[in-house]
Amino acid sequence: MKAMLLHEDRLFPSEAGALKTARALYAEIENLPIISPHGHTNAGWFANNGPFPDPATLFVQPDHYVFRMLYSQGVSLDDLGIGQQKIEDPRKVWRIFASNYYLFRGTPSRLWLDYSFQELFGFELRLSEKTADLYYDTIAEKLQTPEFLPRALYERFNIEVLSTTDSPTDSLSDHKAIRASGWKARILPAFRPDSVVDPEFVGFAGLIAKMGEQTGEDTSTWIGYLNALRKARARFREIGCTSTDHGHPTAQTADLPAAEAAALFSKALSGKTSAAENELFRAQMLTEMAQMSLEDGLTMQIHPGSVRNHNRKVFEHYGRDMGADIPAPTNFVNALRPLLDRFGNESKLTIILFMLDESTISRELAPLAGHYPCLRLGPPWWFHDSPEGMMRFRQQATETAGFYNTVGFNDDTRAFLSIPARHDVARRIDCAFLANLVAQHRLEEDEAFEVAHELTYSLVKKAYKL
Amino acid sequence: MKAMLLHEDRLFPSEAGALKTARALYAEIENLPIISPHGHTNAGWFANNGPFPDPATLFVQPDHYVFRMLYSQGVSLDDLGIGQQKIEDPRKVWRIFASNYYLFRGTPSRLWLDYSFQELFGFELRLSEKTADLYYDTIAEKLQTPEFLPRALYERFNIEVLSTTDSPTDSLSDHKAIRASGWKARILPAFRPDSVVDPEFVGFAGLIAKMGEQTGEDTSTWIGYLNALRKARARFREIGCTSTDHGHPTAQTADLPAAEAAALFSKALSGKTSAAENELFRAQMLTEMAQMSLEDGLTMQIHPGSVRNHNRKVFEHYGRDMGADIPAPTNFVNALRPLLDRFGNESKLTIILFMLDESTISRELAPLAGHYPCLRLGPPWWFHDSPEGMMRFRQQATETAGFYNTVGFNDDTRAFLSIPARHDVARRIDCAFLANLVAQHRLEEDEAFEVAHELTYSLVKKAYKL
Amino acid sequence: MKAMLLHEDRLFPSEAGALKTARALYAEIENLPIISPHGHTNAGWFANNGPFPDPATLFVQPDHYVFRMLYSQGVSLDDLGIGQQKIEDPRKVWRIFASNYYLFRGTPSRLWLDYSFQELFGFELRLSEKTADLYYDTIAEKLQTPEFLPRALYERFNIEVLSTTDSPTDSLSDHKAIRASGWKARILPAFRPDSVVDPEFVGFAGLIAKMGEQTGEDTSTWIGYLNALRKARARFREIGCTSTDHGHPTAQTADLPAAEAAALFSKALSGKTSAAENELFRAQMLTEMAQMSLEDGLTMQIHPGSVRNHNRKVFEHYGRDMGADIPAPTNFVNALRPLLDRFGNESKLTIILFMLDESTISRELAPLAGHYPCLRLGPPWWFHDSPEGMMRFRQQATETAGFYNTVGFNDDTRAFLSIPARHDVARRIDCAFLANLVAQHRLEEDEAFEVAHELTYSLVKKAYKL
Repeated sequence: MKAMLLHEDRLFPSEAGALKTARALYAEIENLPIISPHGHTNAGWFANNGPFPDPATLFVQPDHYVFRMLYSQGVSLDDLGIGQQKIEDPRKVWRIFASNYYLFRGTPSRLWLDYSFQELFGFELRLSEKTADLYYDTIAEKLQTPEFLPRALYERFNIEVLSTTDSPTDSLSDHKAIRASGWKARILPAFRPDSVVDPEFVGFAGLIAKMGEQTGEDTSTWIGYLNALRKARARFREIGCTSTDHGHPTAQTADLPAAEAAALFSKALSGKTSAAENELFRAQMLTEMAQMSLEDGLTMQIHPGSVRNHNRKVFEHYGRDMGADIPAPTNFVNALRPLLDRFGNESKLTIILFMLDESTISRELAPLAGHYPCLRLGPPWWFHDSPEGMMRFRQQATETAGFYNTVGFNDDTRAFLSIPARHDVARRIDCAFLANLVAQHRLEEDEAFEVAHELTYSLVKKAYKL
Repeated sequence: MKAMLLHEDRLFPSEAGALKTARALYAEIENLPIISPHGHTNAGWFANNGPFPDPATLFVQPDHYVFRMLYSQGVSLDDLGIGQQKIEDPRKVWRIFASNYYLFRGTPSRLWLDYSFQELFGFELRLSEKTADLYYDTIAEKLQTPEFLPRALYERFNIEVLSTTDSPTDSLSDHKAIRASGWKARILPAFRPDSVVDPEFVGFAGLIAKMGEQTGEDTSTWIGYLNALRKARARFREIGCTSTDHGHPTAQTADLPAAEAAALFSKALSGKTSAAENELFRAQMLTEMAQMSLEDGLTMQIHPGSVRNHNRKVFEHYGRDMGADIPAPTNFVNALRPLLDRFGNESKLTIILFMLDESTISRELAPLAGHYPCLRLGPPWWFHDSPEGMMRFRQQATETAGFYNTVGFNDDTRAFLSIPARHDVARRIDCAFLANLVAQHRLEEDEAFEVAHELTYSLVKKAYKL
Repeated sequence: MKAMLLHEDRLFPSEAGALKTARALYAEIENLPIISPHGHTNAGWFANNGPFPDPATLFVQPDHYVFRMLYSQGVSLDDLGIGQQKIEDPRKVWRIFASNYYLFRGTPSRLWLDYSFQELFGFELRLSEKTADLYYDTIAEKLQTPEFLPRALYERFNIEVLSTTDSPTDSLSDHKAIRASGWKARILPAFRPDSVVDPEFVGFAGLIAKMGEQTGEDTSTWIGYLNALRKARARFREIGCTSTDHGHPTAQTADLPAAEAAALFSKALSGKTSAAENELFRAQMLTEMAQMSLEDGLTMQIHPGSVRNHNRKVFEHYGRDMGADIPAPTNFVNALRPLLDRFGNESKLTIILFMLDESTISRELAPLAGHYPCLRLGPPWWFHDSPEGMMRFRQQATETAGFYNTVGFNDDTRAFLSIPARHDVARRIDCAFLANLVAQHRLEEDEAFEVAHELTYSLVKKAYKL
């Protein structure tokens, strides 16, 4: 066991010249505020500002990066408290996690966790079976102190903006409560309409009806439905929302004549659409959303290509988001064409494309974003928001799309404590990439400093209109 | 020409810090015994223990890595003795090989061959037109000595376990002869049922009938056929077999109702199935094999995605395995779902997935293996069992699947003398990868030593139940 | 701003040992003549030898690498003079380019442009808003001097062979004029028959009729059409042409019975073919072209996988080649089979495959080229003719296809001044790749020197029969 969990030069190139440059770049941007424009934290944490209950509930239960790995090696989800309202014996869960901590060697989870362990809780000894109780007791105690309440951590993390992800029918009451409390943090909702644009979403028709009630529109008609979406977007914008997000199985878009779209909507509402029609409806709705973004200015994020809930039994027993969403091959070049035919040349529209299929970076995404004024490339997402994944993204995207068609980093996390750790990894990898460019004389040092600042701070604010 | 063919630091990182770590790691695991759980050596070599006839028959004729490259540059297969029962003029073949040896620059074949040339035969001068006869004479002479008989080489190579690959109808007489001889080597068969589960295999129905005779089952019925497979597996297990292997065109699985499966089997036996039905039958049989593995504990290997015998004329003149099997895009995420729906959560089942399509590593394979308890990732296979290929595999798999969902190295070779060379390359690349992680402070040095040992020795023994 | 735009060690490895080797390799091949066997320069430049009009017309208007990036960031194509016969205010265009030059950070365009700026025009200060007019005035002045006329630049660039790309119906008058002038440069046409083999090409039937008139063949018949193509090829060969080029949406080939091919041709001529029939006709024509190449010895280039004119509005307003050709997933393994079944084993036929889908390099292209005698791998193309792209190509192709199944570099450019810059980048990356192999002891230094020479000079001459 070592005296420190993290080395100050971690993730930097090891060759002396590049290392020196990486250190210098990082020193410049290390302390810039965190802009977190996309993620899955819970606004209720900040509205209520109650303490996190215990180490297992904080680090294991909500983090599918963590429990999926344990599960893959034969640990049962029940033994980890997954799906339980309240973990019965959190110390037992923690001990299982600790004694299997070696499984995370070489993974980004290890970097993120060690960052929290060291920076927030002051640990110097690695987590293991032997240190399990030391960790548990220390963390549990600190979580009860004022310094570890959600708002205190938010401030300590130096977060300038934090966006949550919310359903169009959400009351946004937590967001309102935060504002009403007078606390000055900038926590914003993002408009994620999957549940009301995807006929395969459980409760689709009911949620549309609910949206109709909330907006006073007759959502049984195509026009009323679109109006309701417009009003819901306006309600989000009023409270500060600047972006939408779309988690579709594919990147397919469509541009149907209005009458066909209306007929398809009616059929979808009736629940009688085929799988192909559901796909077509989702495709049409991406184009409709782009139209509305052109009107109201919301930046549009598309997260395609995940086969959700791949493990049938885990889904049936534990529900969604249990670490079993598996990427599939994604086509952008043909799929986006209907939308781009209509809006591709609009430089006032911003559509951020995310990928789970790395073969698309150099083949499709960088060429598309390096041409169409409306397109930008989101940072590596899920599985790929890792040192190697982020480095490959820069290596495969930059030469064709440049830096300025990218939009900085998203932490995209449900694990609040991992936010500074994730941004730190991203900043280090960007500095390492830039340092390598400087070392290879592909970029001058003064430019690298400017780009490092853009990648950390300016590009994300611009792309998300923050 | 140089005084040594191989440098002691080959394949290690060149930066001084990482190099030092790589050397230290390698020193620890360099001499661990070889576990070779999957390959295509001939048990008859060890049963008979006769001398290998000559250099060309040993190094050129059986090694499609070698003759494919020569063929791609216009050397005729006939001039290389390919397809000949006995090479008429092996020295002539050797001279062609030697004078074209420069073609292997930058390939793993070069590393493997030089290893054998130096370590086994003591050469210090590079193979070329000039040294062709020196090589030929030296090798030919040594092959006649007791130290170069198959069993002596096996022992010299420090092999702890060696698995062959065998048809369900194989008599296993060579394996039995080895045991009967009292020689203590652990040479095991692996159960490869492609010929009796793939309706497109030449002789499919006849081989099933033969399996019926061997097992006393009525293989004209679905139930009898499955029972015969069970008995054939049991016969393999009795002699030490711990794994099955499945070389399918795709990774498609299916889970048909028993009556449909039975009807499909009847149709397949009659030779009247369409290409789609053949694919469905193979898909169903993967699921049946998983069921049997759950019963009898055999580890299951799936090698999908190769378009076999792509060169029609070469296939017609020279037969199978002539270097013309070309990988095709492979889908795992949808293809495996039927099997995973049934058995994915069984932690007692081990299914090892191999890939020929590198785009699947980060997109599908690592996410699947990083979640499902039954899945493990096989090492880079064919074309990819190379320094760059193995490094890319670790870079693309580790962050999502970790080290512990991988299973060490397979040499997968028909070229017996290349076994220690191939394991040496794999060990060096793993040490290089780990050394880079240490140099980037992503892993502590004590952990790297532990992982190096696991990757070389422990994980393979566990995954293959050896 | 810096004193030099380019560092003498640019693109080399930064580790000291590898850097030393890279420098030594580069010193050996740096001054070898340029062989440019495929590109899109205009033979008229050299026939007429008139001065290039101004900096914007030279550097911005013809270079879709340049204006696509500007367009992606919201600069209008009209403001860049795109589609204009004569740029009205070239200085204004230049200022826009200069003030957005930071967008090219990290791209190969930056390397190519800086090379021209420094090596041809002697600039030491980086292009920017501040230096825009200095650049403009200096370049504009020099372009009027004899040293900057096309022929003078050609000689200064040390070009040994330069190939253009030409339609079968082209008069080749510029090529003839060059010869008639007595100027000794070797500028050759390449036979690119897309317009007369692709039923979707605008003017398809008319161009075939024109080819009939030119050759005296009845191109309304299948036989007459094929004869006309043979005669057109002969006309190209007479003037020095050694290669054909085929820019198809996919790599699909076909081998139809003659009667079916003839019927399909008639239908295509009539304009009544479906999209699938058009694809089949193009597929058939690749096989016919291979047949003719076997007869007349022209090396065949296939550039598949680009979705041309992806941006509908840009195509409608500005026409073809406006930076909106986006790569799509490409399959080679099945697509090439009909052609390879007929000609794959012909070692006298040379077919060079190019890729826009990097996932095919290790999966399909290297295995195919490492087996079939007729196949060679073209250098990374478009988007991928960049430092990272070229390095990935070597890393993914070499281990399976070796160096000798590759064919050196193509600049493939419309931007004449970028030719030496592009070859310089390619040479540096090859030296860097070789130096890394030497540093890892995978290749001896004497071999690296030999291979560097082959990659720069010998392989391209051999593959293109120059």
